[in-house]
Amino acid sequence: MLKLIRSGAAVTRAQIVQQTGLARSTVAQRVDALVAAGLIYEAGDSLSTGGRRPTRLAFRHDSGVVLSADLGATHSRVAVHDLAAGPEAETAFDAEIADGPEATLALVHERFLALLAEAGRDRAHVRGIGVGVPGPVAFGTGRAVNPPIMPGWDRFSIPDWFADRFPDAPVLVDNDVNIMALGEHSAHWRESDHLLYVKVGTGIGCGIVASGHIHRGEVGAAGDIGHIVVTDHEDVVCRCGNIGCLEAVAGGHALARRLSAAGHPAQRSRDVVRLVREGNADAVRMVRAAGRSLGEVLAACVNFFNPRVIVIGGDLGDVHEHLLAGVREIVFQRSLPLATRDLRIVPSQLGDRAGVTGAANMVIEHILSPAAVDRALREAA
Amino acid sequence: MLKLIRSGAAVTRAQIVQQTGLARSTVAQRVDALVAAGLIYEAGDSLSTGGRRPTRLAFRHDSGVVLSADLGATHSRVAVHDLAAGPEAETAFDAEIADGPEATLALVHERFLALLAEAGRDRAHVRGIGVGVPGPVAFGTGRAVNPPIMPGWDRFSIPDWFADRFPDAPVLVDNDVNIMALGEHSAHWRESDHLLYVKVGTGIGCGIVASGHIHRGEVGAAGDIGHIVVTDHEDVVCRCGNIGCLEAVAGGHALARRLSAAGHPAQRSRDVVRLVREGNADAVRMVRAAGRSLGEVLAACVNFFNPRVIVIGGDLGDVHEHLLAGVREIVFQRSLPLATRDLRIVPSQLGDRAGVTGAANMVIEHILSPAAVDRALREAA
Repeated sequence: MLKLIRSGAAVTRAQIVQQTGLARSTVAQRVDALVAAGLIYEAGDSLSTGGRRPTRLAFRHDSGVVLSADLGATHSRVAVHDLAAGPEAETAFDAEIADGPEATLALVHERFLALLAEAGRDRAHVRGIGVGVPGPVAFGTGRAVNPPIMPGWDRFSIPDWFADRFPDAPVLVDNDVNIMALGEHSAHWRESDHLLYVKVGTGIGCGIVASGHIHRGEVGAAGDIGHIVVTDHEDVVCRCGNIGCLEAVAGGHALARRLSAAGHPAQRSRDVVRLVREGNADAVRMVRAAGRSLGEVLAACVNFFNPRVIVIGGDLGDVHEHLLAGVREIVFQRSLPLATRDLRIVPSQLGDRAGVTGAANMVIEHILSPAAVDRALREAA
Repeated sequence: MLKLIRSGAAVTRAQIVQQTGLARSTVAQRVDALVAAGLIYEAGDSLSTGGRRPTRLAFRHDSGVVLSADLGATHSRVAVHDLAAGPEAETAFDAEIADGPEATLALVHERFLALLAEAGRDRAHVRGIGVGVPGPVAFGTGRAVNPPIMPGWDRFSIPDWFADRFPDAPVLVDNDVNIMALGEHSAHWRESDHLLYVKVGTGIGCGIVASGHIHRGEVGAAGDIGHIVVTDHEDVVCRCGNIGCLEAVAGGHALARRLSAAGHPAQRSRDVVRLVREGNADAVRMVRAAGRSLGEVLAACVNFFNPRVIVIGGDLGDVHEHLLAGVREIVFQRSLPLATRDLRIVPSQLGDRAGVTGAANMVIEHILSPAAVDRALREAA
């Protein structure tokens, strides 16, 4: 019912009765409950051909807000969105995720309160919280599981931590590339069913949108393409112990190390970006070669998954013209013609904002799902 | 409503009212329509704690049948199932798909009529038809698209051909590995959300079940893993023009050719199976090596997709102990520990019957979907 009202498919009680087959009394009762819950309001009379004008119902997208946080290894971003995913306030700050969950989440919480004040909101408006973290997550429980770059976070319950501060807000936690994929999909590619978002930063990971929803896989491990083997790199040993992993060949950390060994000042992926922008020929050559290795893995993903769109983001996405040249060269050579016929390979449009946008959308879909709304109305009754 | 009755979640009119929130009058009306359509029947009184006993409703799974056909390059199988996917009759026969659609479908039609007679059914019982073909399919229109081994079938409308013979039966056409994946999932792995079915025959293809449904990709090209590149085979040229494709390294046709070159009598994948069974050391060694190459590609698929189950079928699946040894060796070495923690890699349990089982399930889900049932009831009214 709320979905019909949100989408504008049915805006009067009579239309809802007609479209759902629900009893008139059931509809009247639920409309009252949704109004009482502040999710919809009576927006005035609708046009009618005669008789009493039926009241038009509308979704109150400003009736609450969701908080979202995209936690990176050294840099994080937090935001406040209304219930239609309209941005109300946003900020980014440096924070070492290796400082552990208590220190990091305290910083996030502080920013949340500041952003709420900035947006003229308070705690009572918060309907849900979405958090992205740079590691594997057991989505059902909101805990990171053996995250390699998040010491102290293993099995730590992020929802429990927030439950004390925002008791009424459900907290969803997901891997950062998953929410980035959802962010790009929600903002720019809603009409495409299948999308891959590839983050090329220190490491390399992939978020998958299948039939419009995040595909997390059986244990939340889907999209871990950084350890797929690529050809012609039998000499490259990865931190995982295997040989020739994509991440060890084409990740930002690997490129920085190789540039540094070649005498160029580079420690991390952002330094690679800087060198490319300065026109350093070695850096440009290496990023193009990295694009070709990434293209080899993505060609396999295209043959296997047949997506409509591949979005390339992450630090290295900032020099996407060089990276994408290599990716496109190999994908269009190695994937089957049918699978590449309508395929788009594009740079991220949201950039650093993909994560918080996706986390906000994830939470909104959750709290406005029929099951969640039913539960909330029952509890209110 | 039909779903609730089929699953046994709600078996009286009152329970349906309670669980759906639909008006009592709406429920009564729809129950009458479903009874009139022969999809449900009044199965007698249910237990009651007093007063008038409410009537128990039950799904009439024998109220109709679906026909299914799994067309192979040289061999096909057709079957009749009831609406609960219970098998009623089945047969297999040799037919060259290269003879074109008219000749092939005439043979299929002839078998359909014979099987219907065998099952004590007639045309009027046929509620739907499912067909699997060995090539890419535009699922929406039921036409093969540039199928490499199906001369004469390109863009031929299989649904139109059957429409003249079974005017009231919707016809769904899909790629053969897709219906095989659905068959294994429906029969043995319903509780697993994500499954891959790999057919290792002349070529190599993969059917994908994601969140319980066939994942076809944006243009129906998903699962084409035969042309993913594998390492250490820079000398192998594939018929697609690329170097080192999985199919050219590990497909049944490639193995037969290599065995033949080594002086062993082998022309096609079944010959490879025979040689392995005879204990031919070259054949055993080659199948194990093929398993490792397949394992390399599947390790990538596991990292990317994180399935719960990988089912190995096709001709070479008949010597699965050797093939799976190679697959498991590489998948468990090259995939990430989290993704392989609960992963099962198993031989096909349905064998040659996977295709017709899956095609039957595909059609049943379609014709009993709420949208299809609503449409049928409206047309009947």
